[in-house]
Amino acid sequence: MEAGILINGQVLGLAGTGYPDAISFLSGGDEAIQEAARYAEDGRDATPIAQVKMHAPVPNPGKFICIGLNYRDHAIESGMEIPEIPTVFTKYDNAVCGPGDPIILPSVSEKVDYEAELAFVIGKRAKNVKAADWEDYVFGYTCVHDVSARDYQLATSQWTIGKTFDSFGPMGPSLVSKDEIHDASNLRIWFDLNGQILQDSNTDQLVFDVPALLEYLSSVMTLQPGDIVSTGTPPGVGMARKPPIFLKPGDVCTVGIEGIGELVNPCVSELE
Amino acid sequence: MEAGILINGQVLGLAGTGYPDAISFLSGGDEAIQEAARYAEDGRDATPIAQVKMHAPVPNPGKFICIGLNYRDHAIESGMEIPEIPTVFTKYDNAVCGPGDPIILPSVSEKVDYEAELAFVIGKRAKNVKAADWEDYVFGYTCVHDVSARDYQLATSQWTIGKTFDSFGPMGPSLVSKDEIHDASNLRIWFDLNGQILQDSNTDQLVFDVPALLEYLSSVMTLQPGDIVSTGTPPGVGMARKPPIFLKPGDVCTVGIEGIGELVNPCVSELE
Repeated sequence: MEAGILINGQVLGLAGTGYPDAISFLSGGDEAIQEAARYAEDGRDATPIAQVKMHAPVPNPGKFICIGLNYRDHAIESGMEIPEIPTVFTKYDNAVCGPGDPIILPSVSEKVDYEAELAFVIGKRAKNVKAADWEDYVFGYTCVHDVSARDYQLATSQWTIGKTFDSFGPMGPSLVSKDEIHDASNLRIWFDLNGQILQDSNTDQLVFDVPALLEYLSSVMTLQPGDIVSTGTPPGVGMARKPPIFLKPGDVCTVGIEGIGELVNPCVSELE
Repeated sequence: MEAGILINGQVLGLAGTGYPDAISFLSGGDEAIQEAARYAEDGRDATPIAQVKMHAPVPNPGKFICIGLNYRDHAIESGMEIPEIPTVFTKYDNAVCGPGDPIILPSVSEKVDYEAELAFVIGKRAKNVKAADWEDYVFGYTCVHDVSARDYQLATSQWTIGKTFDSFGPMGPSLVSKDEIHDASNLRIWFDLNGQILQDSNTDQLVFDVPALLEYLSSVMTLQPGDIVSTGTPPGVGMARKPPIFLKPGDVCTVGIEGIGELVNPCVSELE
């Protein structure tokens, strides 16, 4: 899928540059950004966003890392202790989809839940990086909807299987470069189901913020350009409500983050 | 990395075919196998294996899926119930390495443990596949060494972080196509540390065998050619011994499976 730059509502495809897809662009570092900027100045080939099919900002991340139990307000609400170590699980490549794509509700699950999350995307190979140096390694941010089949997630001790049904990792609406965000640890984050706000918090509640997660994860594994880390969800998920709320065909899900945008996905039945 | 076929101790590189790497070869299905067979008949470009640097059979799997708690003898020994649902966790791409590559013991862990495992590799896109149809979707088998930093694995509820340090997923020595294995559910499997056998079991002890795992996983996620599933480890891991045994620099680890071969990796310190 072709990478593109979104400027003032216009999308500029990068097929004509040396960086035709997201991973090659991110791997290109400052040179890629400069080439894209020159290309953008020229302004040829710009298309209004309404005429473009937007995909996931990174359609094929090498790693789709997820963090659990990472909002202070959620821990307090649940009477849990504030974690001292990040909890890490995963989604696989089959989970990735983009803005507008359907969330496919599997026939085998009765308990598909929503989770609004801030995600960051790696822009440079990272191993043993200190938190203070985060700006050299994080390219930017996007919204992730961490769709979760609670019956599968909680059927064994390990959550991943309930997190990685096809289409359970919508991301978007675009990847916002870090220079556009003043402080990723002070952004309103919300989840809207059919017009009703069900999660509403702020990333200032993150127990482990973006620099801390980068330091922890890179102390274990080499991160590569395009790897994405979804940082966990605030209170208000459907499973914890009385009565519980689970997603059903026809629902429209919106994950919103201040300064990043809104990621909207409709829900459809697997059987449709 | 170039794909190659191993026949009678000779490696035949596939760079000259339409299937130069493992994923493209596996994605090529029967046509790729036939083209490789024609190429092999010709016999040009064959190199004795001793002169070839062997890499992981799938150096860049889209998914590296791991199964836990999957040996009946291990469950009985531990006094655990036989699981009714597979336990799924992951390794990321950074964990992959090949035969002979060093297992890098991280300075932050004191408890790096060994696990010998049978793995299968997907040869064809699979969604909602029935166990009985497994032969259409499984390309073949290899050994995986599921190296595990127990202190990281058990620091939170989710195991993945302790399973995915760089180099913690050696695989090999080669990918053996399914026609070469009479019955993957009746193979001796062992782990040898510096010449001492520490695990010695048989895949007939698998709670969920290869067809059952294929059915379960493909009921959740679309599997793709090159995806690898490591099926869990038999009793005898270092953590469960009295006194415990953990890996140290200079150790030589061998995962062996009847009919597949031996995967040998030396251990080195991260600081070397």
